[in-house]
Amino acid sequence: MHHNKSIMMATETTSNESESLTKTDGCNQSVYPNQEYDMKHAKRGLALIFNQKDFSLLGLKTRKGTDKDRDSLVSRFEELDFEVKAYNDYSRDKVLKEIKEVAAADHVDADCFVCIFLSHGEDGHVYANDEKIKIPEITDLFKGDKCRGLVGKPKIFIWQACRGDKKDDPVAPMSAEDSDDEMAVDAGVSNTLPAGADFIMCYSTTEGFCSFRDPLNGTWYIQDLCEIMGRYRSQLEFTNILTLVNRKVSLRSICDDLSATGTKQMPCFASMLTKRLFFRPKK
Amino acid sequence: MHHNKSIMMATETTSNESESLTKTDGCNQSVYPNQEYDMKHAKRGLALIFNQKDFSLLGLKTRKGTDKDRDSLVSRFEELDFEVKAYNDYSRDKVLKEIKEVAAADHVDADCFVCIFLSHGEDGHVYANDEKIKIPEITDLFKGDKCRGLVGKPKIFIWQACRGDKKDDPVAPMSAEDSDDEMAVDAGVSNTLPAGADFIMCYSTTEGFCSFRDPLNGTWYIQDLCEIMGRYRSQLEFTNILTLVNRKVSLRSICDDLSATGTKQMPCFASMLTKRLFFRPKK
Repeated sequence: MHHNKSIMMATETTSNESESLTKTDGCNQSVYPNQEYDMKHAKRGLALIFNQKDFSLLGLKTRKGTDKDRDSLVSRFEELDFEVKAYNDYSRDKVLKEIKEVAAADHVDADCFVCIFLSHGEDGHVYANDEKIKIPEITDLFKGDKCRGLVGKPKIFIWQACRGDKKDDPVAPMSAEDSDDEMAVDAGVSNTLPAGADFIMCYSTTEGFCSFRDPLNGTWYIQDLCEIMGRYRSQLEFTNILTLVNRKVSLRSICDDLSATGTKQMPCFASMLTKRLFFRPKK
Repeated sequence: MHHNKSIMMATETTSNESESLTKTDGCNQSVYPNQEYDMKHAKRGLALIFNQKDFSLLGLKTRKGTDKDRDSLVSRFEELDFEVKAYNDYSRDKVLKEIKEVAAADHVDADCFVCIFLSHGEDGHVYANDEKIKIPEITDLFKGDKCRGLVGKPKIFIWQACRGDKKDDPVAPMSAEDSDDEMAVDAGVSNTLPAGADFIMCYSTTEGFCSFRDPLNGTWYIQDLCEIMGRYRSQLEFTNILTLVNRKVSLRSICDDLSATGTKQMPCFASMLTKRLFFRPKK
């Protein structure tokens, strides 16, 4: 397979993705700083949004405000030239069917792939409207051996996912105020480091911290992410954007109720990216 | 506590750390891109290195090559103006005693803190020479409420930590070749997202990938990290350095045995940093 070395070298600077599938030889390859993902394919790629609001089947609280998040994300990712598909209140089967279809699709002319989950969650799971789904059940479908059209391309997963916030949930630090008109508090998905090169996992919150959702204005994390992506997308590298979101959410969460404990939120991103990632305008 | 708002605003641009302890009010604070951590304190700070080579008490394999990692790290972090302390083959009690003492220290005139663990590991644990330690037992001691001198400062944890690689370990994909003279293969610490603002966790490997240690030259991850930090430290932001390490390790691991499965390594970093981090020379 030694003839692949020159091909591999070539794919560092071209967009011929069919060649980068055989990423077999990088031994003597130089590693340059500031190398960027090729974001000049014909298409930016797909952005899937699973918006889970109604949890009557599971007896969990309605996620009021999540439609605001969905709308902000649709606008923002369309501005970033993504083909956005938003799904509301899907069952586990429907989520996995959709994800499998997308993972099996071509992606050869796409820059990257985005999947966003807005839901309740816990312990490395997110909730569909009827059952929970293990996060790797979703992400594993996009690994190199399963989804060859995305090999070498950024695979971005955004988890605004909260622990089931039943009123009797002992982990909710603001349960006394957890009425429909107040800020909802959810503990976050945690303990989930995903696998695979060129994946980045963006979490609304870190283990031990709360995740906040405003019933009118959406979640702090998604709203801040959308605002900062809108303002700095052509200027800042994606992990720099996420660092800025970390700062904005961590500051914002401090002030809303000085007397309460637990009124902090600390987002987190886990990066297996191998190059810098910019969403510069396509034209 | 409203008088703290002006103080909090001030701490964004000054190095008076005693003021930033009461980080209580950030509501209307603007979030600027490219804001950097203050790295101009009198000292860079402490870098602890726990180097675990001998595992005769636990019946795990000797981690040959780890002294090379330790030596490379000592040189590199001293060049970066850290006060480096390296410990060899500590017991669980000695590790925790040392960590607790450091967490209880002042840190007020330090830029940041680094803790590096070179050992076997599994499932969110790392091994001392007699017992395993849950990663949060170490990291939790440096959270804001426990270690006030490091509030608002980068807390960097580096885990070159591998699953116990007994010969009969069914997860070791190269067990047939796992003699003392061959490359050692270890699966990584996984499933550990840490908690807390301004933490960054740097993992040698991601769940599902292997971690490689050369008995002569040290581990791929630590050696590549040291090389890239040495070359680009004054030029690149720390997460950009880690992205470059992701790329270098992911390329390097592919080539050494084309015929073997599992000969890949994918590092990962989980960032709760809130600003950009540069290790520019102190003088």
